[in-house]
Amino acid sequence: MRIGELSRRTGVAIPTIKYYVREGLLPPGELTSPNQASYDESHERRLRLVRALIDVGGLSVQAVGEVLGAVDNPAQPLHEVLGAATKRMMPRYGDAEDPELAAAREEVAALIERRGWRVPPDSPAARALAGALAAMERVGHGDFAEEVLDQYAQAAEQVAVADLAYVGRNASREDLLEMVVIGTVLGEAVLAATRRMAHQNASARVYGDRPPGAGDA
Amino acid sequence: MRIGELSRRTGVAIPTIKYYVREGLLPPGELTSPNQASYDESHERRLRLVRALIDVGGLSVQAVGEVLGAVDNPAQPLHEVLGAATKRMMPRYGDAEDPELAAAREEVAALIERRGWRVPPDSPAARALAGALAAMERVGHGDFAEEVLDQYAQAAEQVAVADLAYVGRNASREDLLEMVVIGTVLGEAVLAATRRMAHQNASARVYGDRPPGAGDA
Repeated sequence: MRIGELSRRTGVAIPTIKYYVREGLLPPGELTSPNQASYDESHERRLRLVRALIDVGGLSVQAVGEVLGAVDNPAQPLHEVLGAATKRMMPRYGDAEDPELAAAREEVAALIERRGWRVPPDSPAARALAGALAAMERVGHGDFAEEVLDQYAQAAEQVAVADLAYVGRNASREDLLEMVVIGTVLGEAVLAATRRMAHQNASARVYGDRPPGAGDA
Repeated sequence: MRIGELSRRTGVAIPTIKYYVREGLLPPGELTSPNQASYDESHERRLRLVRALIDVGGLSVQAVGEVLGAVDNPAQPLHEVLGAATKRMMPRYGDAEDPELAAAREEVAALIERRGWRVPPDSPAARALAGALAAMERVGHGDFAEEVLDQYAQAAEQVAVADLAYVGRNASREDLLEMVVIGTVLGEAVLAATRRMAHQNASARVYGDRPPGAGDA
């Protein structure tokens, strides 16, 4: 298909498609004449993936390039691809050393130990967790880790098992890498949205439609 | 305390503190002389909250202003505060009407119905979920909703119950609003990080340290 058709199918503007090709996010089309390139379904699929990572995942064009570079490199082990995506997507809480961060690191190490997780304590996800727990401590909610963290971990395990089962049912070797990226980024958006909906539901049950503190009708 | 002490305690530079005051994120200190203002613990606490929302939550200064405006307005019902935070934090997938989005909206409505959630289908979280599911459909994973979504929803319910119990144990009326904001933003960072760690653990168990497809040792 021509670039106009690719644009129509995906809803991505032609100049944007050309920009992605220049930045290496999308392979160039096959030249059919000096001024004309032809694109196929693999371009369409890749373009949709790029848009999902940018629009839903909030990744920068540069970050998408790094993640796709990892996906496209068959020599790169799966966990490194995941690592590349994770590094890009993880909240970057300042690494300023303070007592809260040191304490949070110990909490994370204890969590890993307690649950028997095969996760290096210095992996991006573990460091991001320590950063988030340290931020909670700094705003006066250090007891969160003690009271709630294991229930988060249990929910995360449940989700991870469902994810892996889904991947196992659906994945060829090439699909597998792509799905890790999609699952990491889009799955997170799904989980964040369902958690908010569950909050909204719980809150509606507790407070009804009354403002808090308004008293009973 | 003076602004220098506030800066030292929180690790936030003095010009940044002044910027937050100008933008209305932090109330001005009490003037003790024409050139000198005095700050107290409430300023320190608010400043830590601002930094957590920006650094961990990834909110813009403008978004923090909107969320805090909602927190500081006692007439605003709890669910509207949550709504303000949610609106700001939710991934903004383009609302371009296409068949995928229409189908995803129906899936979300069916989920709400199936689980008996008191959540309006046009709330920001429900719309964000529809956007993420539509994005999955567009990259060829429309069956995700069918196969995995309910397990995400179940995990989200579990986390929401833990969150509400934590809030219930800890909250005065004023704290409650602040905690909703913290829990929405920081809790999400915690959950995302634990999910990645659970993935890493599951993946390490399945693939060991071998690249996928490398065969058994």
